[in-house]
Amino acid sequence: MSIGTRGRGGRLAVVGLGPGGRSTCSPEVRELLRQATDRVGYATYLDLAEAIEPLTRTQAAHASDNREEAERARVALDLAAEGRDVVVVSSGDPGVFAMAAAVIEQLDVEASPTRWSSVTVTVHPGISAAQTAAARVGAPLGHDFAVISLSDNLKPWSVIERRLDATAGADLVLGLYNPRSRHRPEQFGRAVEVIARHRADATPVVLARDVGRPDEHVRVVTIGELADRDLQATVDMRTVVLVGSSQTRVVAGADGRTWTYTPRSYPSEVADPD
Amino acid sequence: MSIGTRGRGGRLAVVGLGPGGRSTCSPEVRELLRQATDRVGYATYLDLAEAIEPLTRTQAAHASDNREEAERARVALDLAAEGRDVVVVSSGDPGVFAMAAAVIEQLDVEASPTRWSSVTVTVHPGISAAQTAAARVGAPLGHDFAVISLSDNLKPWSVIERRLDATAGADLVLGLYNPRSRHRPEQFGRAVEVIARHRADATPVVLARDVGRPDEHVRVVTIGELADRDLQATVDMRTVVLVGSSQTRVVAGADGRTWTYTPRSYPSEVADPD
Repeated sequence: MSIGTRGRGGRLAVVGLGPGGRSTCSPEVRELLRQATDRVGYATYLDLAEAIEPLTRTQAAHASDNREEAERARVALDLAAEGRDVVVVSSGDPGVFAMAAAVIEQLDVEASPTRWSSVTVTVHPGISAAQTAAARVGAPLGHDFAVISLSDNLKPWSVIERRLDATAGADLVLGLYNPRSRHRPEQFGRAVEVIARHRADATPVVLARDVGRPDEHVRVVTIGELADRDLQATVDMRTVVLVGSSQTRVVAGADGRTWTYTPRSYPSEVADPD
Repeated sequence: MSIGTRGRGGRLAVVGLGPGGRSTCSPEVRELLRQATDRVGYATYLDLAEAIEPLTRTQAAHASDNREEAERARVALDLAAEGRDVVVVSSGDPGVFAMAAAVIEQLDVEASPTRWSSVTVTVHPGISAAQTAAARVGAPLGHDFAVISLSDNLKPWSVIERRLDATAGADLVLGLYNPRSRHRPEQFGRAVEVIARHRADATPVVLARDVGRPDEHVRVVTIGELADRDLQATVDMRTVVLVGSSQTRVVAGADGRTWTYTPRSYPSEVADPD
C-alpha cells in the first residue's frame, strides 16, 4: 500500500469521504482526517471534510480549483516530502474519476522529483455517488454494469459514443458521471440517443443529484421521457445518471415510491437484445 | 428510501459491511447492526458482522447457505412483517451482485404476500471488493470501467462472453466478480482469451483475494502471464480480478512495490484500439 521508502518523507493518504456526511464516511478515513497536518483538495470537498471532522488549530487546508488535479497532486506530494502528514480529499471514491489516479500519475513521469520517493502513499476507498444513488432506489446496479464519464475534457467524444454503444449494446446497466455541463449542453442528448437505440422506451433511468447531501434529489424516469430537452436540462455535473438494462424492472411500493432493480438472473432468450 | 406503509410492520435494512473490519464499515451500517433485533445472511457474512458489532443477548442471527438468496429474502421479509427490526447483511456493497436486488425482487411478484407491504425497506451501501482491490494497488479504476460477474449460474455463458468482448473491445477497464469456481474451472481461461484479443500482453491485471480480510493477498500480473493455467488456478470465488485498459500503466515504487493506475485522459490516436 505504500510507495517510496519510509525515509524522512511524510505520508500522503488519498481518501474518499463517501457521498457526504459522517454516517457514510469510513472510520479509517475519518481517523486520517483527524491525524493529518494538511488537507489538500477542491474547495467543495474540503467543506465536506470539515463537516465530517472539523479542522483543528494546528491543521492547514489547501484549496484548489477542481480542474487543477495535476497541480493539486504536486502540492500534496511536496508537502509530504517536507515531512508533513497529508490527506488528499475526494468526495465519493478517490479511485473513480478522482484524485488517486492523479497522484499516482505524478509519480509516473521520468522527471518525477526524487524527493517524492521518500513519501509513503496510500489510497483509502469511499462509497461512490453511483452506489449511493442506486441504494436510494433499490438495486439498479444488481447485475453487470459499466461506469462511464461523459466529460470530453480528457477524451475524444468519439470514444465516449463508442463506449456507450458497446456497453448499451451488450445490455449492461450504465452509470454516467459528469453527464452534462454548461459548456456542452447538447452532448447529453446525443448520449441518450445512442443508448436509446438499444433500449425500450420504458427502460428506467435514475437521475440522482447531490446524492448524500442536504439538497439530494433522486428521480426515476424512463429513457423515452429523457428524449425531452427540458428534462435533459435538469441534469448537470452534480447529477449521476443510472440507465437500466433490458432486465431492469420498476416496482411500485405500497407507499407510492418507485423502486427499481436489476435481477441477478438473465434469461437465455434475450441473449442478444439487439 | 422506504417501500410499504409504516404500519404495524417492522423494518428491513439491506446493509453492506464493506470488505471486512470496523475501519471500513460505515457508521450508518454499524448503527443498524447495533439496533436490529435480527440479522439475516450467509453465515460467512454474519461472522464479518459479528466482528464489527458483536451480537447482544437480545439479538438473533439467522444464517443461510450463500446460494439461497430468494429464500433468505423471504425469511427476512417475514420477520420484518412480524414487527421485527431486521438487517440483511452483505459483504461489500449490497447493491452489487448481492442481496438488495434479491429483496426488492421478492416484492416484485404478483403473489407477493400483502403482509410484506407493511415493511419499511431501506438499502445502505458499502465499499465494494473491487474498490478495495483498486485502492491497494493505486487507481486502476480511475477511468471508464465495467463490472461483470463470470458466474454462469444465473446467466448463459454466451452472454458473459459477449459482454467481455464488447467491453474489452471498447477499451474499458474490467472488474471481474466470481471469476472461477471448482464447478467451472475452464471458463476463466476462456474469459482471459476473449479479453486478451483486445489487449497487449503487458496489460496489468490485479488478482485480489480476500481483500480487506486477514488473509488478503493482492498481486499485479499481466494478461500475457494469465494465459498460464497454474496462475489461473490461483484464482477462485474469493478473488476479484481487475484487468487494465490499453492506457493502464504500471509504476515501480521506490520500495519495490508495483502500483497501477488508469489515467483520466485518453489520447485521440488510440480512439479505436482494435
